[in-house]
Amino acid sequence: MLLYNSAVSGNCYKVRLLLAQLGVGYETMDVSVVDRSNRAELLGELNPGLRVPTLVLDDGRPLAESNAILWYFGDGTSYLSDDPYERAQTLQWMFFEQYSHEPFIAVVRFWLRYAGTPELFADQIPAKTKGGYAALDGLERGLLGREFLVGGRYSIADISLYAYTHVAHEGDFDLAPYPMIRAWIDRVASQPLHVTIDA
Amino acid sequence: MLLYNSAVSGNCYKVRLLLAQLGVGYETMDVSVVDRSNRAELLGELNPGLRVPTLVLDDGRPLAESNAILWYFGDGTSYLSDDPYERAQTLQWMFFEQYSHEPFIAVVRFWLRYAGTPELFADQIPAKTKGGYAALDGLERGLLGREFLVGGRYSIADISLYAYTHVAHEGDFDLAPYPMIRAWIDRVASQPLHVTIDA
Repeated sequence: MLLYNSAVSGNCYKVRLLLAQLGVGYETMDVSVVDRSNRAELLGELNPGLRVPTLVLDDGRPLAESNAILWYFGDGTSYLSDDPYERAQTLQWMFFEQYSHEPFIAVVRFWLRYAGTPELFADQIPAKTKGGYAALDGLERGLLGREFLVGGRYSIADISLYAYTHVAHEGDFDLAPYPMIRAWIDRVASQPLHVTIDA
Repeated sequence: MLLYNSAVSGNCYKVRLLLAQLGVGYETMDVSVVDRSNRAELLGELNPGLRVPTLVLDDGRPLAESNAILWYFGDGTSYLSDDPYERAQTLQWMFFEQYSHEPFIAVVRFWLRYAGTPELFADQIPAKTKGGYAALDGLERGLLGREFLVGGRYSIADISLYAYTHVAHEGDFDLAPYPMIRAWIDRVASQPLHVTIDA
C-alpha cells in the first residue's frame, strides 16, 4: 500500500495515526504542500481533488480524502461504532472538521509556519482566525460533559478533529480558554499505540 | 421528524431530495441563511456547527451536516452501496463536495443571488470563482466514462454533488465546457421521484 504523504499535513497525519493504531503497514511517497506544480501529473489518475493524502491500496485501487480513508480502515474495528446513530454522529464531526475547522485552523497554520511567505496572507489572516475560533467554540461545546466526541470512546471522529486542533498553536490559536479541548487532547495523546505528527 | 431548513440552501435540498425519494415524511422549520443572529438560540443545543440542515429525529435525537444525514438515511437502501470500497468512494466524493466544491460554488451563488449585498463581496469573488472551476474540473474528470459517480448507479454521492452543481449558473458559473457534468445533471434530474430545489 502506498500513501502519497506530507509530513506536516494534519490530513495525512490522521491516516498515519489510525494505520499505526491498527498495525497496518504501508510505504510513503512525499508530496510537497508548497510547490503544487506537479500535482496533476502525480495524482491526476488517482484523485480528482489532487490532494494528499491519496492512498493506493494493495490491489491498485486509489482512495482519497483523509476522512474517507479513516472510515474505510476504521469500519469494523473498535475505532468506529456499529450503531447507526453513532456512525452518523461520527460523520457529522468529520464533515464539521472539513468544512468548519480545517479551512481555518489548518490554513492559518500553513500560512504562518509552512508556506514560507506569511506576509502574502496577512490581510486574510484575521477572518480565517475568527473562523478558527468559531470552530474551536463548536468543538468545546461538543466536548462538554464528554470524554470523547462520539459514544463515550475514542474513535476516528477524535482522530479527525485532533489532527489540526493539537497543532493549532502553530497558527497562533490560544487554547487556554478551552478546558474541554485541552483535556481531550491529553486523552487522545494517551491512547494505546499513539504516534505523534512528527514521528 | 423536524428539519431545520432553508428553501434556497443546496445543503438542505440534498436532504429533501433523498427523503422524497425514500418516501420519508417530516416537518420543516425555516431558518434564515442571511440573518444568522438567532442561530445559537435556535440550534445551539442541536448542532455545534449552528448550520442548516439540522434534523431532529422522531426520538428527539439531533443530527447535522447534510452529508452525514444522507448517509444515515441512505445506508441500507439502493442509494448507498454495500461494498466497502464503493462506500469509501461515496464518502470521498462527499468530502470533496464539502471541502473543494461547496465553499466556492455555493458561496459565490449565495453572494450574487441571496445575500442582498453582492458589492460587499466583489473583491473576494474572483478567487472563489477560480476555486469553483477547479472543483468543476475535478467533477468532470470524475465523471469521465461514468454515468454516475460511484458503482455505476445513482447514489447519495450524486445527490451531494448535484445540489449545488445544478444551480452553479446562479453563481455565474458556465457549464458549457463540461459535457460530462451536463449529461450527468440530466441523468440525476430524471431519476424516479426526483424533486426540484424549489419544489
